[in-house]
Amino acid sequence: MTPSRTTSGGAPGPAGQPAWELLLPAVGAPARRRGRALQEALREAVRSGRLAAGTRLPSTRELAADLGVSRGLVTEAYEQLTAEGYLRGERGAGTWVGGAVRAPGGGGSGTGGTAGADGRGVRGPVAGVGGPVAGPPGPGLRVDFRPGVPDLSLFPRSAWAAAQRSVLARLPHRALGYPDPRGLPELRGALAGMLARRRGVVADPERLVVCSGVAQASTLLGFVLRARGLRTVGVEDPGSPEHGRLFASTGMETVWLPLDGEGLRPGPLAASGVRAVVVTPSHQFPSGIGWSAERRTALLDWARAVDGYVLEDDYDGDFRYDRAPVGALQGLDPERVVYAGSVSKSLAPGLRLGWALVPEALLDEVVERKRTMDLGNPVLDQAVLAEFVTRGGYDRQLRRCQRAYRERRDALLAALAEHLPGTGVSGIAAGLHVIARVPARFGPPERFLARAAEAGVALRSLEEYGTARPADGDVRLVIGYAHLSPSAVAEGIGLLAGAVGGPVGS
Amino acid sequence: MTPSRTTSGGAPGPAGQPAWELLLPAVGAPARRRGRALQEALREAVRSGRLAAGTRLPSTRELAADLGVSRGLVTEAYEQLTAEGYLRGERGAGTWVGGAVRAPGGGGSGTGGTAGADGRGVRGPVAGVGGPVAGPPGPGLRVDFRPGVPDLSLFPRSAWAAAQRSVLARLPHRALGYPDPRGLPELRGALAGMLARRRGVVADPERLVVCSGVAQASTLLGFVLRARGLRTVGVEDPGSPEHGRLFASTGMETVWLPLDGEGLRPGPLAASGVRAVVVTPSHQFPSGIGWSAERRTALLDWARAVDGYVLEDDYDGDFRYDRAPVGALQGLDPERVVYAGSVSKSLAPGLRLGWALVPEALLDEVVERKRTMDLGNPVLDQAVLAEFVTRGGYDRQLRRCQRAYRERRDALLAALAEHLPGTGVSGIAAGLHVIARVPARFGPPERFLARAAEAGVALRSLEEYGTARPADGDVRLVIGYAHLSPSAVAEGIGLLAGAVGGPVGS
Repeated sequence: MTPSRTTSGGAPGPAGQPAWELLLPAVGAPARRRGRALQEALREAVRSGRLAAGTRLPSTRELAADLGVSRGLVTEAYEQLTAEGYLRGERGAGTWVGGAVRAPGGGGSGTGGTAGADGRGVRGPVAGVGGPVAGPPGPGLRVDFRPGVPDLSLFPRSAWAAAQRSVLARLPHRALGYPDPRGLPELRGALAGMLARRRGVVADPERLVVCSGVAQASTLLGFVLRARGLRTVGVEDPGSPEHGRLFASTGMETVWLPLDGEGLRPGPLAASGVRAVVVTPSHQFPSGIGWSAERRTALLDWARAVDGYVLEDDYDGDFRYDRAPVGALQGLDPERVVYAGSVSKSLAPGLRLGWALVPEALLDEVVERKRTMDLGNPVLDQAVLAEFVTRGGYDRQLRRCQRAYRERRDALLAALAEHLPGTGVSGIAAGLHVIARVPARFGPPERFLARAAEAGVALRSLEEYGTARPADGDVRLVIGYAHLSPSAVAEGIGLLAGAVGGPVGS
Repeated sequence: MTPSRTTSGGAPGPAGQPAWELLLPAVGAPARRRGRALQEALREAVRSGRLAAGTRLPSTRELAADLGVSRGLVTEAYEQLTAEGYLRGERGAGTWVGGAVRAPGGGGSGTGGTAGADGRGVRGPVAGVGGPVAGPPGPGLRVDFRPGVPDLSLFPRSAWAAAQRSVLARLPHRALGYPDPRGLPELRGALAGMLARRRGVVADPERLVVCSGVAQASTLLGFVLRARGLRTVGVEDPGSPEHGRLFASTGMETVWLPLDGEGLRPGPLAASGVRAVVVTPSHQFPSGIGWSAERRTALLDWARAVDGYVLEDDYDGDFRYDRAPVGALQGLDPERVVYAGSVSKSLAPGLRLGWALVPEALLDEVVERKRTMDLGNPVLDQAVLAEFVTRGGYDRQLRRCQRAYRERRDALLAALAEHLPGTGVSGIAAGLHVIARVPARFGPPERFLARAAEAGVALRSLEEYGTARPADGDVRLVIGYAHLSPSAVAEGIGLLAGAVGGPVGS
């Protein structure tokens, strides 16, 4: 952001009011970046405490006039930050700074998140913690809709090979020695900048631990919390059973916590007795909802009240199709949230490369646990990813995946409408999967799934991901589409309809 | 081995005797490989049970005549296999098949170890589990003799880059997906063949788990044994404190077990109550001894008696300078020994790439633990290493390191003789470090080490690696040399002598 380009008309706010001029540098950004820059400046002002909790914000009309920008830009910023939990709004009554945000403790200098924001490529959470799709394709398998796998043919082989060559040509010898268990410093710096920019996290490189994906982040945290005496971890219901399995390997028992359409229900959470939860607030897996601002705030309040911790699995945080991504929960309280993500959906799961942003209070224990598990991640892939992120290759790759996955999602929605009319699709428009509710007339569910399997179509039902069983006869499916070409998507849904008695093939 | 090239004179042994003709294919190998091939054929015959425990072998003269080879070749084979525990010999009384060897259970088809043996490049165990040398060089540090670090400038960058390119050009897309937690099949096959050939292990690819080096192999085994109820692990004294730290992270307490000049002392081992030990029998770290055949056998007898397990850390098994390497302990009983090694000393610790050969009874638990820790090692480096091993690049790299390290060791011995006369060097000629006992007149030890540090020479004393304290006034050092050029070695010893009052500089 270049303050020198501040537009005319950006007069400071009235005396005695908070210093709205702190937002001026943002609106000095080039027009195409202005909205994003304003949001980031506001977020940073709240986070740093310059805008204290409870502060009433000017109306959108006033602030737009003060800053000399369009009212739409301000409205959009208020809405976005309200959705993320930074602000609270009541219809007709105004907008206040929320109470949920906590600045990072320790010396963490924070973010870098306001620098270099770039409004292109609107993205958000993606899909598929679920880990590997089980097993090889069976005999007769024609189309596999199971979620959690990206399109491996999108891996940028030649760009990756070029980065490998460049890394091997320049890496100092000592970088080939025993690694820093936290990760290569250049990668930690590059990731911190990228995550602050893209996901709105508080990303201090000193708090970032490079690890083997979200799976290892889960195990690391589990061991650390178990050593502190915790014996249970809460997981979303419906959710990914894999979360429970990973924590079980550290000696922690799973407690399923019910979701509704807004997020974890506060009552059962409070009654559960857990002091640690794993959540997917940006794009809940598998239901596809985005948590409401109230539930985000309530979760953090709960964490502070019980001295607990939240693992935020941002498993598909880079893919959002129809609206701006919601910032990560971690940005609201970096001392209570471990934020974890990976390149598994954006590059390849086989790289086993991810990251965790860790609260100060847990950092030393997590790093020591990482050290005893493997001494640290391999250095060459780390150096390649650092170069990729720094030189723009990672952003290009995300845009490429985004385009491909959006096209496939559209193909899926069109095929469902054509071949299985009446099917409802829910969940926000993001990620690598959708939830489809197929009308009862194609069911019942057991027969539906059996016929699909006979026709060579692999599917997962929503019931595999939690404890709930539907009372109605609808078939609820978690359909992964990202790894399939648009024509394979259409073929698969056509086969499915033929097998279960839809318009074609019945 | 090509039986078609069997030499004339290779008559079968007498009727009623074990079928010595099973050794004939070995002696049909080209002359330069014949000795090695004979040893491998004998080892395989013992291991497979074709030569049963207690079978008396023909005299060296008889067998040489039967096979039509020189008596020296047979004598050498008997001596080597006796050192490894496959055979037992009593001076003047003959040679028998030992009782220590157990064939692998399960369906493990075994080895491949007799194929493609190649007598060039005599190597053996290397040095330095100790993990990373602590911290960055301090101010004024001029020569760092701390052990455990290979010469990182020997990493074959251009060959590695070429293999990376080739891998990215040919790897199928699906290989970029979630990995097999056991490792890439092509790497497991390549490593199994290489380890059988070089280290005499029973290397079934189905039992090989690719992991992040010996450190992770230790943690994996620790968690598995802890889950089975074990609470203590025995480590060699002196030994690497890192072994204890890794097992401690899994909830297992360290019990130091005293060594003598032959290996672990059986009495204290039996009295300790442990049911798991970590050992370095091929080149004990740090003392440098090679375990005697009796102690190898005794350890395996103990393991069977207590239903225990042995982790064999073959940390420097590829570097042996003046004699044939002793085969790994695991070859004697693959159901009681977890064999672990890595590329940390031969390529680079930063690759975090190693392997464990796991007894059938522990395999599923180790693999599941590996899965929850990280889902499996990254695939690209695995594919590159597979290509490296398969196409001979790994053997070339080992020869290159071997030459460099031998030259440095010789420079060290010469410098010690010149500058610190009277210094005794012990331990077998292998690995990346030596044990030097500097006469008391240069001491006492505390002053010696302090003066060395003041002169910019970093050293580790043997006392850092265990509980023993010497009664005499000698200074006992563990000197790592592999990462230093011959001139740096000479400079360092010269500086040291100057600081402590040796012939130069006093």
